[in-house]
Amino acid sequence: MDSKKELKMRCWIDIDGKKFFGPGRVQLLQMINEHGSLSKAAKEMGMSYRKAWAMVDDLNARGKTPFVILHKGGVSGGGAELTPEAQQLLQAYSELTKELEQAIASKQEKILGLI
Amino acid sequence: MDSKKELKMRCWIDIDGKKFFGPGRVQLLQMINEHGSLSKAAKEMGMSYRKAWAMVDDLNARGKTPFVILHKGGVSGGGAELTPEAQQLLQAYSELTKELEQAIASKQEKILGLI
Repeated sequence: MDSKKELKMRCWIDIDGKKFFGPGRVQLLQMINEHGSLSKAAKEMGMSYRKAWAMVDDLNARGKTPFVILHKGGVSGGGAELTPEAQQLLQAYSELTKELEQAIASKQEKILGLI
Repeated sequence: MDSKKELKMRCWIDIDGKKFFGPGRVQLLQMINEHGSLSKAAKEMGMSYRKAWAMVDDLNARGKTPFVILHKGGVSGGGAELTPEAQQLLQAYSELTKELEQAIASKQEKILGLI
């Protein structure tokens, strides 16, 4: 058997039953943090600027604090930075994900051996 | 704020990139185990017999061993039972899920407090 078996996991946050935060937004925030620019972050993710902007707008609108500050205009064409709350959220989410991935890694061989 | 924030998780198994086993099939196997009948299990889940049968057929076809034995006909209209491998898989998946849920519960307050 050459079939590829994978044990997968996804962890996300809903607000009022609607997705608010998960792997895609984590990656977008990480890219914004790295590049200091929403357009560069969007490009890096192969996503339209419009879509990335809508994600940021939703994060800022539905969370209890803003997560991304957009600086308009200027010579550099504006920039984007994460708020301290966004940094804390990324950190906490990354710790949780690591813990979940460890649990999965420890059971993976046993479970995949059964299928 | 009366908004309902939830930290959610899903864990599943893909074979060759296609979903093979996850919460829906777990529930179907549990219902088959409980009722000894695929039609009762399907009914219990609000699912058509046809759909439940297709799930069982896929589980039996793509796993390395059958997971459900269907007994045809007879006075009782046939029955369904799990193989030992299915019992083991349910057990291992349930242990993993419990572990993942504990990790989530321990981080939930902190993470949801940030959003």
